[in-house]
Amino acid sequence: MEEIKIALLGFGTVGQGVYEILQKNKDIFEEKLGIKITVKKILVRDTNKKREVKAPLQLFTTDFGEILNDKEIAIVCELMGGLEPARSYVISALSKGKQVVTANKAILAEYGAEIFDEARKHGAFLGFEASVGGGIPVIKTLNEALIGNRIERITGIINGTTNYILTKMLEQNISFDKALEEAKSKGYAEADPSLDLKGYDSAHKLSILASLAFGSFIPFKRVYVEGIENIDLMDLKFAKSFGYIIKLIAEAKRDKDKVEVRVHPALLSENHILTSVRLNYNAILIKGDFVGEILLYGLGAGREPTASAVVGDIVSAIEYLLSKKSPLIPYPSKNESVKIKPMKDCVFKYYFRFSAIDRPGVLSKISGILGKYGISIASVVQIGRQKKKGAVPIVMLTHEAKEEKVERALAEINTLDVLKGETKKLRIIE
Amino acid sequence: MEEIKIALLGFGTVGQGVYEILQKNKDIFEEKLGIKITVKKILVRDTNKKREVKAPLQLFTTDFGEILNDKEIAIVCELMGGLEPARSYVISALSKGKQVVTANKAILAEYGAEIFDEARKHGAFLGFEASVGGGIPVIKTLNEALIGNRIERITGIINGTTNYILTKMLEQNISFDKALEEAKSKGYAEADPSLDLKGYDSAHKLSILASLAFGSFIPFKRVYVEGIENIDLMDLKFAKSFGYIIKLIAEAKRDKDKVEVRVHPALLSENHILTSVRLNYNAILIKGDFVGEILLYGLGAGREPTASAVVGDIVSAIEYLLSKKSPLIPYPSKNESVKIKPMKDCVFKYYFRFSAIDRPGVLSKISGILGKYGISIASVVQIGRQKKKGAVPIVMLTHEAKEEKVERALAEINTLDVLKGETKKLRIIE
Repeated sequence: MEEIKIALLGFGTVGQGVYEILQKNKDIFEEKLGIKITVKKILVRDTNKKREVKAPLQLFTTDFGEILNDKEIAIVCELMGGLEPARSYVISALSKGKQVVTANKAILAEYGAEIFDEARKHGAFLGFEASVGGGIPVIKTLNEALIGNRIERITGIINGTTNYILTKMLEQNISFDKALEEAKSKGYAEADPSLDLKGYDSAHKLSILASLAFGSFIPFKRVYVEGIENIDLMDLKFAKSFGYIIKLIAEAKRDKDKVEVRVHPALLSENHILTSVRLNYNAILIKGDFVGEILLYGLGAGREPTASAVVGDIVSAIEYLLSKKSPLIPYPSKNESVKIKPMKDCVFKYYFRFSAIDRPGVLSKISGILGKYGISIASVVQIGRQKKKGAVPIVMLTHEAKEEKVERALAEINTLDVLKGETKKLRIIE
Repeated sequence: MEEIKIALLGFGTVGQGVYEILQKNKDIFEEKLGIKITVKKILVRDTNKKREVKAPLQLFTTDFGEILNDKEIAIVCELMGGLEPARSYVISALSKGKQVVTANKAILAEYGAEIFDEARKHGAFLGFEASVGGGIPVIKTLNEALIGNRIERITGIINGTTNYILTKMLEQNISFDKALEEAKSKGYAEADPSLDLKGYDSAHKLSILASLAFGSFIPFKRVYVEGIENIDLMDLKFAKSFGYIIKLIAEAKRDKDKVEVRVHPALLSENHILTSVRLNYNAILIKGDFVGEILLYGLGAGREPTASAVVGDIVSAIEYLLSKKSPLIPYPSKNESVKIKPMKDCVFKYYFRFSAIDRPGVLSKISGILGKYGISIASVVQIGRQKKKGAVPIVMLTHEAKEEKVERALAEINTLDVLKGETKKLRIIE
């Protein structure tokens, strides 16, 4: 039986999960595949730290050089997270001719150009299934199963924390803060949840998906990002009354010679398949010119699902290792041939919520300005005054309009003295 | 640029779709993968038949020998359907050392033992992604992405025709016959739809999925099958009133040392993700010990989605062709080591609909017999008499019971002289 020696960089949540699968399901690899996968080294900062999953003490090292220079180690799994030293370790391992598997969305979204290039240069396999959607096989699907398709659109819910919060707010009629607290207590939100809430986590993942879909690397910094911090329960309820559910959507879409690559909350019609994605589940809807629409759904994070994806990649790495051949399907190229459509040129239907003084003529002033910018109203709801004084909400859904016009119209509307408080603007995705 | 020559066996719906992708998306293969895929021969029965997609006349042949003996043809795509000569052609092509891609679920479900064995013997790649779920990458997912998992359960809606009929009946309040007629007029049901309606099509596909999940070949004849021909609109409506949707479900499930492999209509709770699968869509829910539950959803049939899967397999075949290595992940083995749990030992909650004379004591007689067999009732609805005479429906949901007991209890109940017409029995899947 062929023995394959691998190293794990990092032994946190995902690293322990990978070690656990390799132990617990050893028979699958040995009996089914006829290979023995041996973890030879585990890189950690502190070899004495107590960990839930136990591994023999002699596997641990604090010196990456021990792994890099060990010729027996054919596959390096980077499961540390963070930008550095993860990036340098991945680059060094590739340059030494090792196959690399990583669960690190941030290094790919930030330094993908360099990392993909290094893999290409050395004919190495670089697996990154675990970087998007946990155990959901979206990378393999885009890169292999749908290779015959021109990808037209990817629409995803790819952050569990924000989806959990939005689901709980609407279903339990609770505030954002309360839902966030609940997410934290269940371990679905980190102590500092801002990367998730601001949409950056989704944008990292979308950078990877869009790069695969369009063939050329689209870095994180070119993804338009808006988070969910400003979503009020009131907006979820108004949207629902119009037949829509608000989700944090990551979308990459071809439009003639340009692509839209953006993360923002959006209203989805209740019969849109993505609205059945609740709580901390993730889902990615892919549209190809031949396959039509397919959806992949599952847990997008967590030790076991993420480890499942890493192990799938380890087995792919072994295939290439044994065949001594580089992968046929190329990594996204470095050339920035894909033109990104600026947000101001994107076209949507919109949801607006104005806070206005309850006085005759307000609606006519607002709609007058919208009209001036060519934005036509599809429906409007004005709720009568509840208290003696204070602002009342006016909610509008519009027909299609260009983002730039909408921005200019709202800027002008916000100068009206009958407007109180912030105007909410959300996009509608059909 | 490397040129790969392939042959298509059959030029019907799928064959034409494959030809079309290879022409229309030629740039993907040439520019992205650096390979030229050339269709060298197309086997047809009648070279003069008019076809929607045009191919040069000199590609067509009626002689399989011309393809089999052409050493330049490295990949044979069997897209004819039917058992013979498809089976013989696939076996012959494998035995000549060619890579084979097939969209034919029937030959795999019937003769998988022989076909998988032939592929194994010659170290050939055999692609069959298109045999289940059209363009949905369920084979690649089970076989590659989830390789580190022990598959615990697969629950699928894998027949578009029956799902379309059940969706239309409930949503438009129409009879089975009317919905079937509509499916035919839309091209979602064949002129003779019995393979679909009786569940055989789903059972063919489940045979393939279960064989991959459990590692040893489970032929079609060992799959328990029940179709939807006896589902009345009344049952869909009663189920809905209890919060359930009726779907034709294909399920393969590990239970200790045995597996359940069955196709039958079932009641699913309205918040089950599979109930959001409407019309002619397919979806497969896979549960692995590490990945948890993932769902794959899309169009399960049709020229373009199926052709997309075939082309994905052609590219995989090329990977193996160029690497001159056989696939690491093995085909299901021939040994029948997997024990199939007989249906009589399976345990479900049930839905019963009795047609009874509206007379005092009927309910007590029925529930008395159920009690005798240890079957306890969870809820019951008895609709009062609508006409002067005739039977009234009594609908019951039960707690968990063994199929064998249920069969015996129903047989005894059906002998009661207060029972009129057929008793309906449906299983509930949680």
